[in-house]
Amino acid sequence: MNDKAETPVTVIGLGLMGQALARAFLKAGHPTTVWNRTTSKADELVAEGARLAPTIGDALKAGSLTIICVTDYRAMHELLGASDIDLDGRTLINLTSGDSAQAREAARWAEQRGARYLDGAIMAIPSAIGTTEAMILHSGPQPDFETHKPTLDALGTVTYLGGDHGLASLYDVAGLAMMWSILNAWLQGTALLRTAGIDAATYAPFARRIATGVAEWLPGYAEQIDSGSFPAEVSALETDARAMAHLIEESEAVGVNAELPRLIKAMADRAIAAGHGSEQYPVLIEEFSRPRND
Amino acid sequence: MNDKAETPVTVIGLGLMGQALARAFLKAGHPTTVWNRTTSKADELVAEGARLAPTIGDALKAGSLTIICVTDYRAMHELLGASDIDLDGRTLINLTSGDSAQAREAARWAEQRGARYLDGAIMAIPSAIGTTEAMILHSGPQPDFETHKPTLDALGTVTYLGGDHGLASLYDVAGLAMMWSILNAWLQGTALLRTAGIDAATYAPFARRIATGVAEWLPGYAEQIDSGSFPAEVSALETDARAMAHLIEESEAVGVNAELPRLIKAMADRAIAAGHGSEQYPVLIEEFSRPRND
Repeated sequence: MNDKAETPVTVIGLGLMGQALARAFLKAGHPTTVWNRTTSKADELVAEGARLAPTIGDALKAGSLTIICVTDYRAMHELLGASDIDLDGRTLINLTSGDSAQAREAARWAEQRGARYLDGAIMAIPSAIGTTEAMILHSGPQPDFETHKPTLDALGTVTYLGGDHGLASLYDVAGLAMMWSILNAWLQGTALLRTAGIDAATYAPFARRIATGVAEWLPGYAEQIDSGSFPAEVSALETDARAMAHLIEESEAVGVNAELPRLIKAMADRAIAAGHGSEQYPVLIEEFSRPRND
Repeated sequence: MNDKAETPVTVIGLGLMGQALARAFLKAGHPTTVWNRTTSKADELVAEGARLAPTIGDALKAGSLTIICVTDYRAMHELLGASDIDLDGRTLINLTSGDSAQAREAARWAEQRGARYLDGAIMAIPSAIGTTEAMILHSGPQPDFETHKPTLDALGTVTYLGGDHGLASLYDVAGLAMMWSILNAWLQGTALLRTAGIDAATYAPFARRIATGVAEWLPGYAEQIDSGSFPAEVSALETDARAMAHLIEESEAVGVNAELPRLIKAMADRAIAAGHGSEQYPVLIEEFSRPRND
C-alpha cells in the first residue's frame, strides 16, 4: 500500500474530467503534478496539494506516468508533438475521447518517440471519478497496464480489454449504443403507456425488469454468432416479425413515434428477405455488420 | 391448496401455446376441459387427463373460468359470437395476441353479453409456460383477477396491470421494444468489435454489464418525465450528441451498419433543435410521444 501511495502521477488537461482525475489521484495519496494551457484551472487542485508544472515538458519529467485528458486527439498531438518534448521512457495513458483509428495512430506515434502508450476511455461523468461507479477502459500492451493498474485503481473500476489500442474506443461507443438504445426503448414504452394514463414511474420498474432479463441472454446468444449457426431454439425471426408489426401498429394507433419500431422491423425484414426467417434473432448480425446508406 | 386444485378450467384454442396452457393447468391438478376446431390437437392432452368438450358451448359450461388463446381477435369473435353461445356469468380470460383497441372492444362486447372479461398477454414461449420464467400480464377488473389468480398461478409469473383492458397489450409491445432494442444494440456493438477481431462471446459480458447498469437508472429518470423537468444532473443532451456523432463515425469508419446510430442521433438532434440541448436525456419523451412519418 505504501509503494502504491507514493507513485507520482502527472495529469495533462484540466477540463472538468481532468480535474476529477487529478483529484482522485490526490485523494489516494499520489504526488500529483498537473499542467493545463490555462493555468487558472489548476488553482483548486494546487490548494488541495497538487503541484502545477511551469511547462508541459516539466510536467512529463515529474514521474514516469502521465495521464492525458484533453479536448481531442489533435489537441494531444499539438501539446506533445513539439520537438523539444522528450517522451522517451515515459508511459502515456491517453483518456481523451476519440475513435479507434486515432488511438492506433497515436500509439504508433508515441512508440516511435520511445514512449509506452495505453489508450483509454472513461465511461463515467466527472463526479463519479474515484468511485467504483466509474468504469475506465484500457487497451494496449498488457504489461504496461499491469504495471500501472495499482495507480489507476484510484480512478474507479479499471478494465483491460486487449493489446489492440483501438479497443477502448470501440468498447466505449458500443457501450454507449447500448445505453442510448435502452433509454430509447424505455421512452418508446413510456410514450405508449402514457396514452393510457400510466405514468413513467409506474412503467419504469417493468422496463427495468425486462432489460435485466434480456441482458442475461446475451452470452448465450453470442455463442450462436461465434458458431455461425442460428437454430430457432427460442423463436424464429419470422414469428418475431409479426410481433414487430404489432408494435408498429400499436404505436401508430395511439399516436406516438414509430421510427424505432420501424427500424427494428426493417432490419428483421431484410434478414428474412435474405432467407433467414426460420432462424433465430442473432442471425441479424449479418445485417448489422453491413453498411447501408439511406 | 385443495380448493385451488379443484378449480375447473376450460381452455379454448389448442395451438402450441394453448396446449402448453392446458398442460400447465393439468399439472397443477385442475380439472381441465379443452376445445379446438380441429379436435385432433386435443389428443395428447386427453391422454394426459384433459376432457375434450364436444362443442364450444359445452366447453364454456364446464366451469366458470375460460381461457382463450386463438389466432387473433377475429377468430375469438367468430368462435364465441354465435347467438346460441351463452356467456352470461362466465369469466373469460383472453390471452390471444392483439392490440389495445381490440382488447378494449372485446371487453365491451363480453360485458354486454353478461361475461366477466380480463385481457392478457403472454411474454413467454410455450415451453416456458408453467415455470416462473413465463411472465403473463393481465388487465381488466381487479376483483376478477384476484378471484382467479390462484388458478392462473399455474401458468407462470402472473401480473396485474390495471383496470384498462388495453394495458396488457401495451405493456407487451413496450416490453418487446425493450427486448429488440437491447438485442440490436448488442448486435451493433458485436459488429463493431468483430472488426477488431473480438468475438461475440468476449464482448457479451461487457454488453450485459452495461445493460444491467443502465436498467437501474430508469426509475430515477422516470421521475423527470412525471415532473416535466429535465435538469442535466448527469449529462446534457448536447454533450450526448457529440458522443453520438462518434458512434456514427466509428461505425462508418470500420464499415458496419450505422442506421441505429443515425436514428439515435436524429432523435436527439430534433430535441436539441427544439431547444432542449442543455437538458437531460429523458426530455426526448417529447420526440417519442409525437408521430413522424418519413
